[in-house]
Amino acid sequence: VSPTDFKTSHTTFTFPGLINVNAYVPDLLHQDLDSLLQATRASVSGGFTTMHIISDGGIKDDQALELAQRQVSGKTYCDYALSVVATADNVHSDDLKIAAKSLCLTSAESIAVTAAHFTTWPADKPIVTDATTNELASILLLASLNNRSVHVTNVRTKEDILLIALSKGKDLKVTCDVSVYSLFFTREKYLHAPCLPTLADQQALWENLAFIDVFSTGPMPYQLAKALGHQYTPGSGFEETMPLLMSAVMDGRLTLDDIKIRLHDNPMRIFDIPEQPSSHVEVVVDRNAVFTPRQTHWSPLEGRMLPGTVHRVVMQGHTAYLDGIVVSTPMGRDVSGMISPKRHTLRATDAGAVPGLTHLSTATAATT
Amino acid sequence: VSPTDFKTSHTTFTFPGLINVNAYVPDLLHQDLDSLLQATRASVSGGFTTMHIISDGGIKDDQALELAQRQVSGKTYCDYALSVVATADNVHSDDLKIAAKSLCLTSAESIAVTAAHFTTWPADKPIVTDATTNELASILLLASLNNRSVHVTNVRTKEDILLIALSKGKDLKVTCDVSVYSLFFTREKYLHAPCLPTLADQQALWENLAFIDVFSTGPMPYQLAKALGHQYTPGSGFEETMPLLMSAVMDGRLTLDDIKIRLHDNPMRIFDIPEQPSSHVEVVVDRNAVFTPRQTHWSPLEGRMLPGTVHRVVMQGHTAYLDGIVVSTPMGRDVSGMISPKRHTLRATDAGAVPGLTHLSTATAATT
Ligand SMILES: [Zn+2]
Ligand SMILES: [Zn+2]
Ligand SMILES: [Zn+2]
Ligand SMILES: [Zn+2]
Ligand SMILES: [Zn+2]
Ligand SMILES: [Zn+2]
Ligand SMILES: [Zn+2]
Ligand SMILES: [Zn+2]
Repeated sequence: VSPTDFKTSHTTFTFPGLINVNAYVPDLLHQDLDSLLQATRASVSGGFTTMHIISDGGIKDDQALELAQRQVSGKTYCDYALSVVATADNVHSDDLKIAAKSLCLTSAESIAVTAAHFTTWPADKPIVTDATTNELASILLLASLNNRSVHVTNVRTKEDILLIALSKGKDLKVTCDVSVYSLFFTREKYLHAPCLPTLADQQALWENLAFIDVFSTGPMPYQLAKALGHQYTPGSGFEETMPLLMSAVMDGRLTLDDIKIRLHDNPMRIFDIPEQPSSHVEVVVDRNAVFTPRQTHWSPLEGRMLPGTVHRVVMQGHTAYLDGIVVSTPMGRDVSGMISPKRHTLRATDAGAVPGLTHLSTATAATT
Repeated sequence: VSPTDFKTSHTTFTFPGLINVNAYVPDLLHQDLDSLLQATRASVSGGFTTMHIISDGGIKDDQALELAQRQVSGKTYCDYALSVVATADNVHSDDLKIAAKSLCLTSAESIAVTAAHFTTWPADKPIVTDATTNELASILLLASLNNRSVHVTNVRTKEDILLIALSKGKDLKVTCDVSVYSLFFTREKYLHAPCLPTLADQQALWENLAFIDVFSTGPMPYQLAKALGHQYTPGSGFEETMPLLMSAVMDGRLTLDDIKIRLHDNPMRIFDIPEQPSSHVEVVVDRNAVFTPRQTHWSPLEGRMLPGTVHRVVMQGHTAYLDGIVVSTPMGRDVSGMISPKRHTLRATDAGAVPGLTHLSTATAATT
């Protein structure tokens, strides 16, 4: 984070291009082109130059992945990577392993299926889960038994963050992200939105900030809009991120480094996202701006005065966004298949060949 | 196991006094005296000279434990030990820790409560759980994070036994028991008894016999009788155990040592049950006998010809049971509080003092 941009009359902080590890798109395969363009435009406007797309009802086989790739290719304003959902049927799909960025383990699958995926998913590609409570604990156990790392996305309860903190304390290879909305909105404020954390949960998240590796947007902006009967786009929450986080910097609850680490350094390391050369994000911090209502979707910030306006986004040496307008063309790359050489060596030291696990995975194959 | 008893015309095998690690008594506190006397008489008749009583709706606080002790004291034909149920309210109950044999973790409690119990339960007393699937995995994770052992009781699915096998393969300190009924009855045979394993589950249990430390009776005899609308006593299943297991010996599926290890050696070690001096059980093996209907309760073995009749049970040098008749008086001891010196040293090396866990347990205390 470089301190000041002297060319402007206000204080500007410069971040590297931000990475959104849980850019949630409901039902990606059936989103229309406009929504996707809007979403990736909102991504760049929010300072995110890379989005890791997690979709429910999502990408579960080769056909779906190829469809998603065609769906998105050449139509995004930022780089993107695709996550596939682990199912009983795609344990042995080699194509998914090559073409997808990450594997998402949901609570819907049995332990046997999850165990099988831990043995077959490439060691150099991330495993993500949105599971909670016992299903989360179960996945952490399997990760531990397989000596594999796992990233827990959208952590939103005291119980889960404490379990993760405990696991980190015992050297389990677990990382996690928390939706920015979980840090700033509660169900006490929005009575009709049980998707949000309780105030007690939110306090526990703030108290355990040291154990939160990453901030993300996640499904919460979608869920909140839906719960309140407001309009939503897959880009909801992207432009809200920086103003919300900067308000916490102003309050002294976060430092600029807290943000840089959780929106760039850690996401890059955990998800093995390639460095974007000559890309940066300029954020104005000492001037509050009214968050203007968007035409396409509702925002909980509408009409609020907040600091942290994204002033300019530069991608690969070119200005992509300036003061409210996306000026680039949709030329985002699919970075799903890019594996850094450092990460790739993990494959050699893969801890996958555990007799017990092979047993479990064979058992699964036999029952499905 | 000594080979032959030459005083009789049939082949007799001699086992040490057997231990039932899951002598299930539904609603122990409200059982009448007759039921308890019957149950412990059936225990001795079945060759079990010690029963570890697990009760649902059970013993959750000092008052209940004292009531249970009064309820049982001086009225049992075999030695017994009492298990208490872990709840959010008894994490810090010192009396339970002293007077009970073991702590039973159920799937009903939250991860935070379970984690708190792992830090407060004495290191030299066993922790048992009847949890399944993700709740089981969650408890195994907490056991692993705390470097504590845990015994899983009444394992009855392929998925659970494979998870336990996997965990054992990775040196987690986990042991388990399987109800004898799970090894011999299926829901394919008793269509109205979903409590029983499926045939596929049962096959997986037999295939993973090496990972089954202990045989028990557990709640299945009760659940089966209930499902079929038959009469039940807390002693159901005790007298069926040896005939069922011996039939598997005759079939070549079990050895006598398999039985001795799982009904005496392992239960004694895992539950730290004191050795009973001058006690043994004589079992007739080469003669099939009709399993005669009991007056007090139904048995799935009624009318069946089976080997493995318990001929004589000797406790502390005196014959307690001979050819169908309990000849001793109810003088069973409560062995809950007896801790072997070897086991007691565990307390010094207790791995409980983990900062993260204290945090979790403090958090729990605050919310309850
Ligand atoms: Zn293919
Ligand atoms: Zn960078
Ligand atoms: Zn600049
Ligand atoms: Zn400006
Ligand atoms: Zn007391
Ligand atoms: Zn013995
Ligand atoms: Zn004898
Ligand atoms: Zn005889």
